Amino acid sequence: MNILIWNEYRHEIENEEVRKVYPEGIHKAIASFLEEHHVETATLDEAHHGLSDENLNKTDVLIWWGHKAHDEVQDEICEKIKSHVLEGMGLIVLHSGHFSKIFKSLMGTTCNLKWREADEKERLWVVDPTHPITEGLNSYIELDKEEMYGEHFDIPTPDETIFISWFEGGEVFRSGVTFKRGKGKIFYFRPGHESYPTYYNKEIQRVIKNGVQWAKRNHAPTHDYGNVKPLEDISEK
Amino acid sequence: MNILIWNEYRHEIENEEVRKVYPEGIHKAIASFLEEHHVETATLDEAHHGLSDENLNKTDVLIWWGHKAHDEVQDEICEKIKSHVLEGMGLIVLHSGHFSKIFKSLMGTTCNLKWREADEKERLWVVDPTHPITEGLNSYIELDKEEMYGEHFDIPTPDETIFISWFEGGEVFRSGVTFKRGKGKIFYFRPGHESYPTYYNKEIQRVIKNGVQWAKRNHAPTHDYGNVKPLEDISEK
Amino acid sequence: MNILIWNEYRHEIENEEVRKVYPEGIHKAIASFLEEHHVETATLDEAHHGLSDENLNKTDVLIWWGHKAHDEVQDEICEKIKSHVLEGMGLIVLHSGHFSKIFKSLMGTTCNLKWREADEKERLWVVDPTHPITEGLNSYIELDKEEMYGEHFDIPTPDETIFISWFEGGEVFRSGVTFKRGKGKIFYFRPGHESYPTYYNKEIQRVIKNGVQWAKRNHAPTHDYGNVKPLEDISEK
Amino acid sequence: MNILIWNEYRHEIENEEVRKVYPEGIHKAIASFLEEHHVETATLDEAHHGLSDENLNKTDVLIWWGHKAHDEVQDEICEKIKSHVLEGMGLIVLHSGHFSKIFKSLMGTTCNLKWREADEKERLWVVDPTHPITEGLNSYIELDKEEMYGEHFDIPTPDETIFISWFEGGEVFRSGVTFKRGKGKIFYFRPGHESYPTYYNKEIQRVIKNGVQWAKRNHAPTHDYGNVKPLEDISEK
Repeated sequence: MNILIWNEYRHEIENEEVRKVYPEGIHKAIASFLEEHHVETATLDEAHHGLSDENLNKTDVLIWWGHKAHDEVQDEICEKIKSHVLEGMGLIVLHSGHFSKIFKSLMGTTCNLKWREADEKERLWVVDPTHPITEGLNSYIELDKEEMYGEHFDIPTPDETIFISWFEGGEVFRSGVTFKRGKGKIFYFRPGHESYPTYYNKEIQRVIKNGVQWAKRNHAPTHDYGNVKPLEDISEK
Repeated sequence: MNILIWNEYRHEIENEEVRKVYPEGIHKAIASFLEEHHVETATLDEAHHGLSDENLNKTDVLIWWGHKAHDEVQDEICEKIKSHVLEGMGLIVLHSGHFSKIFKSLMGTTCNLKWREADEKERLWVVDPTHPITEGLNSYIELDKEEMYGEHFDIPTPDETIFISWFEGGEVFRSGVTFKRGKGKIFYFRPGHESYPTYYNKEIQRVIKNGVQWAKRNHAPTHDYGNVKPLEDISEK
Repeated sequence: MNILIWNEYRHEIENEEVRKVYPEGIHKAIASFLEEHHVETATLDEAHHGLSDENLNKTDVLIWWGHKAHDEVQDEICEKIKSHVLEGMGLIVLHSGHFSKIFKSLMGTTCNLKWREADEKERLWVVDPTHPITEGLNSYIELDKEEMYGEHFDIPTPDETIFISWFEGGEVFRSGVTFKRGKGKIFYFRPGHESYPTYYNKEIQRVIKNGVQWAKRNHAPTHDYGNVKPLEDISEK
Repeated sequence: MNILIWNEYRHEIENEEVRKVYPEGIHKAIASFLEEHHVETATLDEAHHGLSDENLNKTDVLIWWGHKAHDEVQDEICEKIKSHVLEGMGLIVLHSGHFSKIFKSLMGTTCNLKWREADEKERLWVVDPTHPITEGLNSYIELDKEEMYGEHFDIPTPDETIFISWFEGGEVFRSGVTFKRGKGKIFYFRPGHESYPTYYNKEIQRVIKNGVQWAKRNHAPTHDYGNVKPLEDISEK
């Protein structure tokens, strides 16, 4: 499978604390545990954000991490990604990617939520234990410190709700949710604030690996849309 | 309730056959059976397509009919309508409105389908018989002649599927489907090609009346989103 | 509306601590805030558990609280209740009623869950803020002390997920969920362990009041099932 | 994979017309195209209906065809099958199996529908074109003659709606629907009246083959249910 990992890649460059956690960037940390696939990475400040048509055409699953520069993603490139998703490319949106242009345009809502940075314990409870994305997990994943995201999360009713998070400070969040849009499968997965070593956690890695398998590009033939002939000539009857 | 009926209003002006069916426009035909509400109408060729903020602010349900000039609806006005829907205004999208900018931007998909103009009989079967939108109906609604719309209909999985249509020529279609987006409720209802007297049908009128009641503006308080304090001071523990 | 509140009514009789909280039984405590309706109550140890056909025929919504004597509910009476639900009677299942025969037979699953009695704080977060059952609520309901129920909750995917609970000890739970079965609407609502004064909480009362409105008996005509004639004589074609 | 095909096997014995279509029984016709798996068959009139615990324990997917003798399936055996489904065994229910005890007990509804035997053309339209069950299909499957099943179909809202049928005589039907119950996956697939050669159709075979792959036994660990300890000792706080 061809995986393309896109990272905004600003925090790691501008903030020493973040760089200590992800010295080569979040994209490289994610790439390191997906090596059974052919993995490429792309970042915001590359030409065309590193997202050429050639690149996207061969991508089976695009993984997206962005946070503070969503607005700098060009509208035309967002439109292009959206077309690829609707044509069958899988999309995994991580953490603060909930506010990315691509996710919001596929959801049709504000994707708003509550948040707090307070080094809180998070427990991601599995609520769909037979879903392929939860394969190999126990009842929950525990992260010692993470940013909190809380309900209400303004998304359409998910096709499937897979994880619900508990946070030390008193909130809950639908942390793993899936959506079909066109021929593409979308998995939103909450954890992964830039200042915590979340993507080194083996269970989080397992979920992303499972997610990649689940979301893989769909090669179903495109339906014939538009003006069609009848089953039999109605006028003959 | 304040209902605003928006109509493209081009077919009726440009095509004599259509004008015979809807001499004052489809919007006026729909307005005539919603008179228990305060009803206003707006059309594409009015200034700002007849859709001022003042107008939308007081609208409980917006009904939308458009067909051949979707592209002429200005993007900023479409964005404005979307904001109002997400803030609680109900939206009923009729027939060829499936391809309108507002519907596509709320769905996130192409909203593509099959179609055929062949004067076919249509039967709309009720598959959710206890839904408020089907109140007062029998097992199905029959329309002697309509344009055919056929699956696959490229929309997200609906929150609720209420009607499934049968067409004489051999196709089926999810003809009545609902979606929640933000605080707004959306009802897509298939029938109503401009050349047929569909909106004079008493059962079709009943569905639209029921739909207006179901979709009425939601006045739920907007959730507090953004940065929040914890339930109790975590640092004290 | 005619509301029938069914209570096992054993804890309150056998346990002094519980009797202090609900001196006249949980059923009477619930009845006291539904007085705008015509309310009757029934308990396990009455003849036929207080559930005659006459009684059920006129009931718009049945509220069910049971805990330690689920097995003593007679199978035939459970079957009768189920028929009434499928014919349109609303059903609100409270707390430990998740293990009642009636709920399990409508769900088709074990309805298993985790639990703990440890005087924990519970926060019920609203995840469907425009649902009629949440009308009048803020972002969450807080209960100072409750029994914990935790995921995984072995139910079918709910039609709607309205509340998700956070518990002090580290768990989450889908606390408010709805299901349609036949013509009946079912609302499962988690809180209400017998040793806590939960049903005196004004917001919990509000949810149950809203639930009663939402679940009210459906008078939609029963569909004609069975052997039917074709739309037109096929053989003539 | 171990597949167990259960057939009532009465029509084929009692009715010469049916026997001409399926000389060795519907179960043998289905077995013949699943030969890449280890396939066993069982029928109503065998001891314990051919369904021992030993048999079910090793079964990955159970396929069920029954029609006129649903009542003769013993309740205890139905309960046993249900337990196996909830523990992860896949279940494919065919055609008139909608009225089987096992399907009704997993659904919790009457599973009622309309029907007509009139040699009608059926078209099964794919409405979820990227679902694994539709892999390899075109836009629809056409059957020249089948029994008609029509809406309303009294089932819970399906987790996924995959096929919708069109019938010559004027009806529609949700012909392919899926449900999760416990750890088991259930696929209901409509076609297959005993008097038509439906199970020799290559596309119908393809759907059943795909369905078997999709429904295969889930080996996810069973969640720990019941009384649990807290995340941390609450009393220490």
